[in-house]
Amino acid sequence: MFEWIGFDADDTLWKNSEYYLAAREEFIKITQKYGLSAGDIDRFDDFEIENIQYYGYGVMSFILSMIEIAIEHTQGEITSLDIQHLVQIGKNMLSKDVEVYDGIEELLNDLSIRYPLILITKGDLFHQQRKIKSSGLKNFFKSVEIVSEKSPAVYSDILDRHAINPDRFLMVGNSLRSDILPVLDLGGITIHFANHLTWSHEAKSPKELPLDRYQEVKRIEDVLEAVKKFEGSGLR
Amino acid sequence: MFEWIGFDADDTLWKNSEYYLAAREEFIKITQKYGLSAGDIDRFDDFEIENIQYYGYGVMSFILSMIEIAIEHTQGEITSLDIQHLVQIGKNMLSKDVEVYDGIEELLNDLSIRYPLILITKGDLFHQQRKIKSSGLKNFFKSVEIVSEKSPAVYSDILDRHAINPDRFLMVGNSLRSDILPVLDLGGITIHFANHLTWSHEAKSPKELPLDRYQEVKRIEDVLEAVKKFEGSGLR
Repeated sequence: MFEWIGFDADDTLWKNSEYYLAAREEFIKITQKYGLSAGDIDRFDDFEIENIQYYGYGVMSFILSMIEIAIEHTQGEITSLDIQHLVQIGKNMLSKDVEVYDGIEELLNDLSIRYPLILITKGDLFHQQRKIKSSGLKNFFKSVEIVSEKSPAVYSDILDRHAINPDRFLMVGNSLRSDILPVLDLGGITIHFANHLTWSHEAKSPKELPLDRYQEVKRIEDVLEAVKKFEGSGLR
Repeated sequence: MFEWIGFDADDTLWKNSEYYLAAREEFIKITQKYGLSAGDIDRFDDFEIENIQYYGYGVMSFILSMIEIAIEHTQGEITSLDIQHLVQIGKNMLSKDVEVYDGIEELLNDLSIRYPLILITKGDLFHQQRKIKSSGLKNFFKSVEIVSEKSPAVYSDILDRHAINPDRFLMVGNSLRSDILPVLDLGGITIHFANHLTWSHEAKSPKELPLDRYQEVKRIEDVLEAVKKFEGSGLR
């Protein structure tokens, strides 16, 4: 059986992508005044991914990318007041209270009695800490790890530091790319909480998944069921 | 005696403030075209500190603050091409190779043979990781801690996790506010590497310092001497 359970945070425990999508809508509204086409706006995702090498992941990265693409694609025609608007959209995202999904508190309460839980979340350190605090969920976790990338090497480092054997580790998260595939790579066990459309950078078609170490659930209520299924399986 | 030695990174191991000062000069050059007064520009520091609640510390925070203040203080007159220039200044700062101070490698090499070293640095997670990698110094450290704030509580948490007794901990850093005072608060030992003018937010006049647990040095070459002085002192 597993000895630790890891949880992703954004889009797993609380709302996140919705805010980015809403901000993107506002961005479109602002920039289409300058004749930006749908194609221009579609290239925003590529541009943002390109910028990750400078900024990493998170809201500040998103704002700066919006500003850059808006200036470039309008050939500098966008007014600075519209840019100020983009900055304000970001500030609102950064200062928003976290909206924890229904059922999460009960789930974490139940699981934390039986297992040490570890939160593993990717993004901006300062903002992630603020969200964790705002969520009220911190005390369910024995450890919180904020990372800039979720690669097998990063998971491996975290598991090492906590003396967790990868095949005794269960990870729960909404992103195949960030939460599931790297943990499967290390020999871990995974529950894919497939609750959402994911950001295009995340959408990677899964290679063949090892079905004895992978389950997909659609609803929070089904996570506990999936945990129990693993507990009852031959994975001991 | 102490059992671990902590090091700050920015302005202690490698150049940092110089880049911010140079960027500030470029910012002044760009904005004074719009008639910004010296007083306006002096308020930039206050504005940046005000923004820490949203952005935390780091280059992205600095860029976004430059953009905001430039727009506000020019009543929106600044062109988006000048804003693009501000973004580019930030991107250059983010992608720059680290310039490690002379003598640091020898110092860390010497100390790391005798003590476990821990790097404790404040700022943006992604950028700090990039700088640590670029510095080539990572292997001297048994642990690397990137934090969003350097308060006594944050130090206490780090020391706890490593099972380090605070009075067995020596911290070396250039900032009284971030590296020295919080560690003294916890009962630790400190070496203030007073190598630089510090950012106004850092400049806090020290209260009475406990001289048996505090030394100030001006040059890297003197850090080792100061360590030996503590080793030879009654602090055992």
